[in-house]
Amino acid sequence: MATVKAAILGFGTVGQGIYHILKERKLELQEKLGVELEVAKILVTDASKERVPNTLHLMTESIEDVLAEPGLQVVFEAIVNEEPAFSYLKRLVEHKCHVITANKVMFAKRGQELEQLAKEHGVRVGYEASVAGGVPVIKTLKNVLLVNNAQRIQGILNGTTNYIFTKMRIENVSFEDALREAQQLGYAEADPFNDVSGQDAFKKLMILSSLAFGEQPNWSEIDVIGIDTISLSDVETANAQGLRYRHVAEIERLADGKLVGKVAPLLVNQEHPLYPIDDVYNAVTVDTDYIGTLTLVGPGAGMYPTASVMVEDYAEIMLRGAGQAVWI
Amino acid sequence: MATVKAAILGFGTVGQGIYHILKERKLELQEKLGVELEVAKILVTDASKERVPNTLHLMTESIEDVLAEPGLQVVFEAIVNEEPAFSYLKRLVEHKCHVITANKVMFAKRGQELEQLAKEHGVRVGYEASVAGGVPVIKTLKNVLLVNNAQRIQGILNGTTNYIFTKMRIENVSFEDALREAQQLGYAEADPFNDVSGQDAFKKLMILSSLAFGEQPNWSEIDVIGIDTISLSDVETANAQGLRYRHVAEIERLADGKLVGKVAPLLVNQEHPLYPIDDVYNAVTVDTDYIGTLTLVGPGAGMYPTASVMVEDYAEIMLRGAGQAVWI
Repeated sequence: MATVKAAILGFGTVGQGIYHILKERKLELQEKLGVELEVAKILVTDASKERVPNTLHLMTESIEDVLAEPGLQVVFEAIVNEEPAFSYLKRLVEHKCHVITANKVMFAKRGQELEQLAKEHGVRVGYEASVAGGVPVIKTLKNVLLVNNAQRIQGILNGTTNYIFTKMRIENVSFEDALREAQQLGYAEADPFNDVSGQDAFKKLMILSSLAFGEQPNWSEIDVIGIDTISLSDVETANAQGLRYRHVAEIERLADGKLVGKVAPLLVNQEHPLYPIDDVYNAVTVDTDYIGTLTLVGPGAGMYPTASVMVEDYAEIMLRGAGQAVWI
Repeated sequence: MATVKAAILGFGTVGQGIYHILKERKLELQEKLGVELEVAKILVTDASKERVPNTLHLMTESIEDVLAEPGLQVVFEAIVNEEPAFSYLKRLVEHKCHVITANKVMFAKRGQELEQLAKEHGVRVGYEASVAGGVPVIKTLKNVLLVNNAQRIQGILNGTTNYIFTKMRIENVSFEDALREAQQLGYAEADPFNDVSGQDAFKKLMILSSLAFGEQPNWSEIDVIGIDTISLSDVETANAQGLRYRHVAEIERLADGKLVGKVAPLLVNQEHPLYPIDDVYNAVTVDTDYIGTLTLVGPGAGMYPTASVMVEDYAEIMLRGAGQAVWI
């Protein structure tokens, strides 16, 4: 059986999740894909720190080391921020590696460029994990858009803020306590600014905009309002009235072709589709012309949901790459 | 540009929807797929009746006529019941035609056999439209199952019964009046037995069982309870208590490997994920090991939602067939 060599860039929550799933599902994936996967390199900032038993020999702090690995074909990228991630992936694509990324900050800004580059080099870019964690919104949208036009996308795109709103409502805890718990569960970054401010949801919205509308609006024209404007007493008052706060991102193409959107807290009643979406769950609703309104709901963060869709991206690339026909 | 010849079997609501979409999206599909589609034959029971302007010359009452069409490559099947649909599709697969079907009765019983036959003849079977109308549950499940194991599936799989429950609750109309309206809107068949009794939802559940668990339970062991057991006064009493009736189908693999399931009315409160699913909408929830719980919601019936996913199946077969790489 042929061996496919892979590297993992970044070995935090998601990177480790990928490693675990690849190990746990080794035999099943071999059987389905007809190839054996070997994780040959793991890129980290401190290669002396062993995060998972028996991985120390795979660690490197140097992208040159990764690029020097003979026969490298696939790279899983789970780094945060645009750089150095984009520069690394650009070199890897030029090196004819397939790229699977969870990096929304990088992909919102450089995704179209990276996809174009991948096309030129005959490799693929999987970015399912960059939006809504374990919810397969990217693949679903790509399929639906083969026939339908999208008119509007609305959703809860950040698991951390939804988790915080839910904790505040159900357990009457302060914003700070709820945030701390989200961080302990691995949902929120050490620096929660991007989650709380709405910047994380905004980046995901821009990725969806590129996919659904073929373009993004001018970033400066989109209002992005965080959840730190909502106090525990606001949440209590709403709850007493049977209402719930959701942190909602939306984008819509107007009749004149202009894209308008925003990210902001929204009060919803029990008839609203986002009313029951609690905890770390994300939901994405798409209005299309033939199908009508489609909604996808699932875990928007966490080690395994996010890592799982990245391994699904890998499986799909292998099945396509091998010229094997499967229905996805 | 190469031409792909297609036939449509059955020219009711869904069959006509396919014809309209193929016509309306002709240029976009040509551009995306690199081939031109020509509907060469339409199989009906009365070929003298023109249902759509300028289609009379395409009509035939004979499957032999369809099979005699030179170069036929794709068939859209939107007939009801197992026979003659299965016999027709079997011959078409042997004739090396790709098959796209919306026929849940046929596919629940003969789907695995048809897929095996298609594999032997190097063609594909698309059956997205057989479950939950416009909701892409089949493709999503196939993708998720590349990495995850499914444990349980629960959903509203019949748009007609959900529409009836919604009408009864919101407009205080009788079961009979609500049913009549569903029929006028093209949701329910002329003979509503399969919808109302739960048999339609049961067939869809069996299709999901084959896909998610690789097998179906013994049909006789599954309780199937229709919605005709619920009166308007039951609905009114529930509504006054803030509860709603949903007609729910579910299947689960127990720890000992046994599959258990049922189809029955279920009373849900506002915390339940199926509470806000009104009208003709369907919802499918899947519990998996890595991702957790995924839910898909969308229109479960109607001309365009169902026809749209069949054209999506066609687009995907063409993209794969041509060996072209796309992310779906």
